[in-house]
Amino acid sequence: MNPDIVKERKNATFDVEKLTFILDGGPEKTRRRREIESLVFSDPDFKEEDPNFLSRSERYDQAVRKSAQMILKLREYGIADPEEIYHYKSMVKGNIPEPLDLHLGMFLPTLLNQATPEQMDRFFMPAWTLKIIGTYAQTEMGHGTHLRGLETTATYDPATQEFVLNSPTVSSIKWWPGGLGKTSNHAIVLAQLYTLGNCHGLHAFIVPIRDMNTHLPLPGIVVGDIGPKFGFNEVDNGFLKLENVRIPRENMLMKYAKVEPDGTYVKPPSTKLTYGTMVFIRSMIVAESARALAKSSTIAIRYSAVRHQSEIRPGEPEPQILDYQTQQYKLFPLLATAYAFTFVGQYMRQTYHRITEDINQGDFSEMPELHALSAGLKAFTSWEATSAIEVCRMSCGGHGYSRSSALPDIYVEFTPTCTYEGENTVMMLQTARYLVKSYKQAKAGQQLSGIVSYLNEADVRRVQPQPVAARPTVVDINDLTSLTEVYKLRAAILVELAAKSIQQELQRRKSQEDAWNNSAIDLVRASNAHCHYVVVKLFTDKLGEVADTAVHSVLSTLALLYTLYGITKNSGDFLQVSKIIIVPQVMQISSRIKELLAQLRPNAVALADAFDIHDKKLNSVLGRYDGNVYEHMFEWARKSPLNATEVHESFHKYLKPLRSKL
Amino acid sequence: MNPDIVKERKNATFDVEKLTFILDGGPEKTRRRREIESLVFSDPDFKEEDPNFLSRSERYDQAVRKSAQMILKLREYGIADPEEIYHYKSMVKGNIPEPLDLHLGMFLPTLLNQATPEQMDRFFMPAWTLKIIGTYAQTEMGHGTHLRGLETTATYDPATQEFVLNSPTVSSIKWWPGGLGKTSNHAIVLAQLYTLGNCHGLHAFIVPIRDMNTHLPLPGIVVGDIGPKFGFNEVDNGFLKLENVRIPRENMLMKYAKVEPDGTYVKPPSTKLTYGTMVFIRSMIVAESARALAKSSTIAIRYSAVRHQSEIRPGEPEPQILDYQTQQYKLFPLLATAYAFTFVGQYMRQTYHRITEDINQGDFSEMPELHALSAGLKAFTSWEATSAIEVCRMSCGGHGYSRSSALPDIYVEFTPTCTYEGENTVMMLQTARYLVKSYKQAKAGQQLSGIVSYLNEADVRRVQPQPVAARPTVVDINDLTSLTEVYKLRAAILVELAAKSIQQELQRRKSQEDAWNNSAIDLVRASNAHCHYVVVKLFTDKLGEVADTAVHSVLSTLALLYTLYGITKNSGDFLQVSKIIIVPQVMQISSRIKELLAQLRPNAVALADAFDIHDKKLNSVLGRYDGNVYEHMFEWARKSPLNATEVHESFHKYLKPLRSKL
Repeated sequence: MNPDIVKERKNATFDVEKLTFILDGGPEKTRRRREIESLVFSDPDFKEEDPNFLSRSERYDQAVRKSAQMILKLREYGIADPEEIYHYKSMVKGNIPEPLDLHLGMFLPTLLNQATPEQMDRFFMPAWTLKIIGTYAQTEMGHGTHLRGLETTATYDPATQEFVLNSPTVSSIKWWPGGLGKTSNHAIVLAQLYTLGNCHGLHAFIVPIRDMNTHLPLPGIVVGDIGPKFGFNEVDNGFLKLENVRIPRENMLMKYAKVEPDGTYVKPPSTKLTYGTMVFIRSMIVAESARALAKSSTIAIRYSAVRHQSEIRPGEPEPQILDYQTQQYKLFPLLATAYAFTFVGQYMRQTYHRITEDINQGDFSEMPELHALSAGLKAFTSWEATSAIEVCRMSCGGHGYSRSSALPDIYVEFTPTCTYEGENTVMMLQTARYLVKSYKQAKAGQQLSGIVSYLNEADVRRVQPQPVAARPTVVDINDLTSLTEVYKLRAAILVELAAKSIQQELQRRKSQEDAWNNSAIDLVRASNAHCHYVVVKLFTDKLGEVADTAVHSVLSTLALLYTLYGITKNSGDFLQVSKIIIVPQVMQISSRIKELLAQLRPNAVALADAFDIHDKKLNSVLGRYDGNVYEHMFEWARKSPLNATEVHESFHKYLKPLRSKL
Repeated sequence: MNPDIVKERKNATFDVEKLTFILDGGPEKTRRRREIESLVFSDPDFKEEDPNFLSRSERYDQAVRKSAQMILKLREYGIADPEEIYHYKSMVKGNIPEPLDLHLGMFLPTLLNQATPEQMDRFFMPAWTLKIIGTYAQTEMGHGTHLRGLETTATYDPATQEFVLNSPTVSSIKWWPGGLGKTSNHAIVLAQLYTLGNCHGLHAFIVPIRDMNTHLPLPGIVVGDIGPKFGFNEVDNGFLKLENVRIPRENMLMKYAKVEPDGTYVKPPSTKLTYGTMVFIRSMIVAESARALAKSSTIAIRYSAVRHQSEIRPGEPEPQILDYQTQQYKLFPLLATAYAFTFVGQYMRQTYHRITEDINQGDFSEMPELHALSAGLKAFTSWEATSAIEVCRMSCGGHGYSRSSALPDIYVEFTPTCTYEGENTVMMLQTARYLVKSYKQAKAGQQLSGIVSYLNEADVRRVQPQPVAARPTVVDINDLTSLTEVYKLRAAILVELAAKSIQQELQRRKSQEDAWNNSAIDLVRASNAHCHYVVVKLFTDKLGEVADTAVHSVLSTLALLYTLYGITKNSGDFLQVSKIIIVPQVMQISSRIKELLAQLRPNAVALADAFDIHDKKLNSVLGRYDGNVYEHMFEWARKSPLNATEVHESFHKYLKPLRSKL
């Protein structure tokens, strides 16, 4: 164990284990998580080569092997709870996406939700036993976010009682689905349904794409891998071109909408039914943002504790990087953010389950709010995390750039969340739509409830800009309740500004749509402020649940740092819009932040430790629990494939012959 | 040619070629650049496989082949001007770093600057003809920024008249030098010189590391590749462990400092001599930031012109992404930044050459300012560009994540500039040191000249915070001169605040060093504001040189967007610190920015075109000049190595056997 990191742990003022319990949701959850993780840890079947040393084809190969292994073991051990599967999987894969993700996460669930009993018989069990391996083919080369724009067609032919599927253009080729390129033999294909000369919009069809025995593409199917990406090297994201592919009528997923044998189209009873999955996945991304950031900040903080560099006082030994104020200012607010997002993730999961139960009881009332919240928070947290990971990486100096740090991998595996499951700007605008609608309702005299109740007329009117002198300074910069109020007011005013911008555009005789587009910057800004407020509020609320005094104290410091940091980073908003904060306070806040950094310094490593991310899962030379960074970096480097031979063949092929030519 | 992009080009209000001339520095420069680029373009010897489809070893192999080829051709064509070499090289490599970069860029120049005539005979010609291939081994595993912390030792042994080189610890192993792992047979090693029992600090030694014939490592040398990184896949960044390696006394670079045969140490006449190279390289990084951003915004803007998505008005065809206000808000300020940084790069090059001439005449007076400016601007521009590239990538939706977009490669090849040649935070603090020093001089009554003259007492006093009511609103938000003044005042106040923070710390009886560290956040903030001011000023100054009315008009709009965008993004600073801008103006500025976005919309593609980046150099499916994105993306994907066989072997190895087990 590195002596610096031992010293750090000795200096901590709280019991790390107790905080881990809070993060996991209780001691029992922590125990069970560790138990499941250790199943993998001690399993020789999961030995692997560092993917960084493999070619893409080898990486794919190793991932398929491990996925197959994992499915066997999960069934063998009888692990079936989604959360426990998650822990097992993340220990096997270190959260690296893999070829069977869409089979397990989309193909099987879609069958469960949308297949008829007859289809369940034909497809579900074969898929459960991996005879059928499926993917979910929605996005096309030219179409992502806007589902109505998808071009793939499924035209019903009553003569043969078949659907004929086609990719009519290059831009209609299915593009991106994971596992589509090489792994799957079936795909659920989203296509525009045509029957009896009418288009009925998007529907889902089960399309066999490869021969069950030879795995060769079936006639009319052009399928393959879309080529290397920033990350996702293990996944065969694929393309699929359909050329007059015929499937039986019964392969349309017909639990809700139907096409009768004669071609008659039968509408689904409701369109709200697919709502839930989207909300669920977006809520999961919030938790994923927290995890990615927890990992990155664990690595950066531990390494900053053992890394010595430069000098603060001449003649003295090089200090730990963590003693530099600039390093603390880079990392501690991100550590606080990782905690904030963890708690937001917990809240989203609980809320999702609560509201799902309401929905099962026929109560849809909270659904729009949850939908708006999950969209905005998905965008807010994934944007924050994606840039924060890079701050962590760069705070590690050059070594952050080495694959041995794990930081490049965390980044490339995480950053797609800003785009998939709803592109972030589009998400922010969806939330804005809800906010503006709520604002208008409040204006019209309706009393709002829930998280947008701050938009109620009385509240908004209370914060109208007034001459500075007229208002007393009421904000206590050490009081989280008071600060949460400030965030709330900022959100309220920015929503109002966005709504007014739309109003002004309409007065200039713009159409509703152009008015919206011409206010989009303000709308995104308003959503962002709303989400920021929600995060601050949930972090503050969480403190109320923490009983242990020492843990409560350090978490309060973190929450205060998160909150004050957010004000300084957006001080223009706070000064300009709500005028709730005044200039001298922003100065005070800057000083206070410096104090908080110093206050957190002795607990920094312990706060990272509390995330309890196993070395094997972290997989980072810089972030090792024991702090013995350099020895292991050397060991890792020597295994680099370029070191397999002392002399690379290029010397004999190019460099030596060059001598005679110059 | 894609009809959308044709339409865009028709709508441009200015002559693209004229703007290209300005960016290149004149029509003759543009002509010569294109001539040199076409030499490569038409050369079958530079045909290559897409590196994205190769293993790391194959990428290295291909890079060595092309580098060798390139050196032959450059000498054959007699291209010797550094700028022309740059153009040739960037066409061969698309700015991807390569194994011989340090040989050409550091080893040869260091010999030229620091070798004695005898050493020039022994080393320079063999290196020129690539018998000797060298690298520059400075950084160690545990030591980067702080040179005095380097641990490698070179101990003089008078008995044999040799130096004995050692890596005494794991953290002292040389780490990161490009070309060190597999390519070089010599290294210039920076080591602590010990002679006659005294340490004389860092000196440079020429150390043979591999046998000239077999290329095998020499005795006492442990050398290899440091393993895969985020990018730089073509480069064998290496490690070097020295175990009692003996080199003749004459292998110390002794143009300045010397060790006599008896071990007597002779000091160098001046320590300022290596100053220049550092300044030069940092200035180059400013230009590199501009280029990386020019590339990224070219790709994102062209793709946004041909990509249609979602709907603004229901029922109408999907609009070009470029018509969305949020997309414009993401991309146009970055386009403006690319222009700004290009002009800053031009200024830095000119200034460097001017001051170098002064120095050759013995006039060192402007050196400190240039040093401070190059450090800060290196950090400012590389930070801005590194995050901007990612904004461009994410603005392309999912396809930005594909390697075919080139954006992932631009990012990973560029982002190391934030760390190397002076870590950015350290750079900002160096600039801050100069600013605070200047501020104190001004306080002490000295009249400052040059770019920091705004710190002169009278000027600073003029902008002291005053009650709002007492000051008239003087800023014209459409006038660049007036806005430049605002940026200047912000910088002045932030420098003053940082200086005052140090003062306060000292009053609390902190040491000078701790006071500095405890004010580091403020110092970085002050440097940042200073650099931002310089960029705004240089962009504004540049407009004065533009004669063509149409070009002047569009560049002015860009400059105004850059300037106003900077104010909104930092509105807290402007509201809080200088109080020069007041709240209603920030609101006005937000509206004005929307107008500028709309104004720039018809010229966006033309402004990207003006960078004149050849398709072969851009190497992006999304950024193609002809806009025919999707056909080429499909073509590219089909070449992916995973598509070499229809059925991947993993199906037979793992997936098929799994069926019988489940």
